[in-house]
Amino acid sequence: MKVLIIGANGTIGKKVTAALKDKHEIIKIGKTSGDLQVEISESASIEKMFKKSGKVDAIVCIAGDAKWDKFDNLSEEDFYIGIKSKLMGQVNLVRIGRKYLNPGGSFTLTTGILADHPVDKTTSAAMVNGGIHSFVKAAVLELENGFRINAVSADLVEDAKEKYGEYFPGHTPVAMDKVTDGYKKSILGKLNGEIIRILPNFSRNLNMGDVFLLKLP
Amino acid sequence: MKVLIIGANGTIGKKVTAALKDKHEIIKIGKTSGDLQVEISESASIEKMFKKSGKVDAIVCIAGDAKWDKFDNLSEEDFYIGIKSKLMGQVNLVRIGRKYLNPGGSFTLTTGILADHPVDKTTSAAMVNGGIHSFVKAAVLELENGFRINAVSADLVEDAKEKYGEYFPGHTPVAMDKVTDGYKKSILGKLNGEIIRILPNFSRNLNMGDVFLLKLP
Repeated sequence: MKVLIIGANGTIGKKVTAALKDKHEIIKIGKTSGDLQVEISESASIEKMFKKSGKVDAIVCIAGDAKWDKFDNLSEEDFYIGIKSKLMGQVNLVRIGRKYLNPGGSFTLTTGILADHPVDKTTSAAMVNGGIHSFVKAAVLELENGFRINAVSADLVEDAKEKYGEYFPGHTPVAMDKVTDGYKKSILGKLNGEIIRILPNFSRNLNMGDVFLLKLP
Repeated sequence: MKVLIIGANGTIGKKVTAALKDKHEIIKIGKTSGDLQVEISESASIEKMFKKSGKVDAIVCIAGDAKWDKFDNLSEEDFYIGIKSKLMGQVNLVRIGRKYLNPGGSFTLTTGILADHPVDKTTSAAMVNGGIHSFVKAAVLELENGFRINAVSADLVEDAKEKYGEYFPGHTPVAMDKVTDGYKKSILGKLNGEIIRILPNFSRNLNMGDVFLLKLP
């Protein structure tokens, strides 16, 4: 299988690449590193990347920026950083990528725990993650050619603990092989239209508000 | 209580206004109708509206556009219609509205069933609704002055059945008083950080994927 991974050199991307590279051909994409480069906030850059890569069997995005800051500090323009990159960047990858995906191919997008359980300073980051969740659920109703689409939404991951742990008090980091399993499930399995949530264990205090049934008035 | 309702003349807004007007002072806002006008996709227009309204006790938004069309037909620009209006329009209402909300006041935003259960042609509309859900959950962590924030997410509402029913096959319309109850819960109650889902009954086929627990890998 020919797998294009955007963010192949990132914290999660590295491990996903390593987990797939023995049995699959990986096209590594980065902003500045990798086999090819892309700036996902620009449609023209996405189109250019696909023209160079040619057709693939799986398009995986483990990239996308959003500004983290106090809600008080975030300007309207700051919100558009995440909107252009992690939100519309991933939507555009699907819009444009359909032309470069072989029949039966898959899209795997990346969101994160913030969509369901935001932390301080993440009004913008949570918003774009939540937007992608609903986009995936809507896009699956319309994709053709046997295309599949899923999003992987992990809690704080082990390899990011040092860098981001302080933002996530009480979040038990998820082991990296559990995270890569989430991506494998989407890329190699048959799941479709799913938000693949990767959580450390069952002990998290559930916000029961998340349970649809209990929200009925 | 002084309640500012954006979209007061809309399908849902009319009923919410009617349900509150006997006991509360309502400032009705519309694009072209109402006591004051606003174009929520423009921050300057929002600021201007609040300067005229002065301080209020509740800011309610039952407005916001997004383009409905086949994913195949939606251009990048089309997605930005919803992003600028229903998504960032509501975020900006909260950003800017904080200055015009009395201590202990509330924000009530509007999303809809599409966030959880999209239908055909709603990749953009679902996306902005999902974005607002996560935004609400993040904003509640940071709002000060005793401010509360919730979103009301109704299924197809009775009064929109004629106009939109064909887009929602099998969706049992929700009675309007049930919908207005959702807004009352947010405006007059103590709920905070909640997505108040208004569904017709318990018989909906649940997408168990929505149930957080069951998504664990």
